[in-house]
Amino acid sequence: MTYVFQSQIDSVLTDLAGVCREVETLVRDATEALLTARADIAERVIDADGGIDAARQNVEDAALEILSLQAPVATNLRIIVAALAIVTDLDRMGDLAVHVAKIARLRTPVVAVPDVVRPIIEQMAEVAEKMVALTARVIDDRDLALAEDLREHDDVMDELRRETFQRVLAGEWSGGVEAAVDMALLSRYYERIADHAVAVADRVHFIVTGENPA
Amino acid sequence: MTYVFQSQIDSVLTDLAGVCREVETLVRDATEALLTARADIAERVIDADGGIDAARQNVEDAALEILSLQAPVATNLRIIVAALAIVTDLDRMGDLAVHVAKIARLRTPVVAVPDVVRPIIEQMAEVAEKMVALTARVIDDRDLALAEDLREHDDVMDELRRETFQRVLAGEWSGGVEAAVDMALLSRYYERIADHAVAVADRVHFIVTGENPA
Repeated sequence: MTYVFQSQIDSVLTDLAGVCREVETLVRDATEALLTARADIAERVIDADGGIDAARQNVEDAALEILSLQAPVATNLRIIVAALAIVTDLDRMGDLAVHVAKIARLRTPVVAVPDVVRPIIEQMAEVAEKMVALTARVIDDRDLALAEDLREHDDVMDELRRETFQRVLAGEWSGGVEAAVDMALLSRYYERIADHAVAVADRVHFIVTGENPA
Repeated sequence: MTYVFQSQIDSVLTDLAGVCREVETLVRDATEALLTARADIAERVIDADGGIDAARQNVEDAALEILSLQAPVATNLRIIVAALAIVTDLDRMGDLAVHVAKIARLRTPVVAVPDVVRPIIEQMAEVAEKMVALTARVIDDRDLALAEDLREHDDVMDELRRETFQRVLAGEWSGGVEAAVDMALLSRYYERIADHAVAVADRVHFIVTGENPA
């Protein structure tokens, strides 16, 4: 493995961390659009997703080229195989941010989130954004302790999703059927962003150790 | 590439078609549990998903071994790279069938689906099951015409999801908030199964042509 080849492989991971930071921006902007009913910000998220798709294609092309020309083994092979999985997760996270933005856009000029669940949704959004930011660092530093932290954040996310459902399905819910459906889907979207963040961290664990986390 | 190596690569695709047929059974059983409120069938689906996870691990191990020992190129390389993506999609489809089964289990002995939307949900389930069955054939036969058919089924699915939402959010909805939320999530799960089927077909297109479908 020459120096040039090695730097090509390392740059795949650097590119992925960059895509992850783009996803972080999408999640943050989608949340802002949601909580402020800003259609212009929602549109920006929806349009920006094409950039993530293109980045996915670039990573897949680079991975295929490296596999066919260099036949990497050991850690380098794991990086390429993991990169193919990671870029799919990142692409889905971007799609989920777009789904959040579309709910925001659908309800403007009204804010889609009723006041009674706003604090929970804000927390879900905050945890999701933080997890995506951590994921970029996990990729950059191959930091398995940080990858483990992500699981704890994911538990918090699952608990917040349960709380959202309890609130929506409680007898005193006054938000109506439409808002109930919106909140069920929104909490699902944020929870799935968190799941994909954990999946990416698991792939980094695999790169470093050669094993999937228990 | 020796005969032994080639048969090892071909068996990856055969294994994937087998996993896809297991997913088809999960989707069918989950739907039956849903429409009949049979907790025992729901449990069977939830337990069987572990088998899909194991199959995913097998395919990933085989793919890594082939990549590191044989350094495949051209079509063989595309098969292995596509297989890694396909098995992830199949795994997710299994998870989504489990989500359907969990809604069924949560509402037993009551049938989770209100009569007024039962025909639409039945159609979504039917389209999803058919698409998963077609996907197994697309993998087995690398049949791109069939892969193209899947897109048409997916359009039907999207339309059915819109109809479900219209029904649930219409003024005359009498199913209550809980059933509305269940139907929103259910229709999302079936739609996502369909999306993954299309994604798998796209990967088969990539194997055969070396290009992603337009």
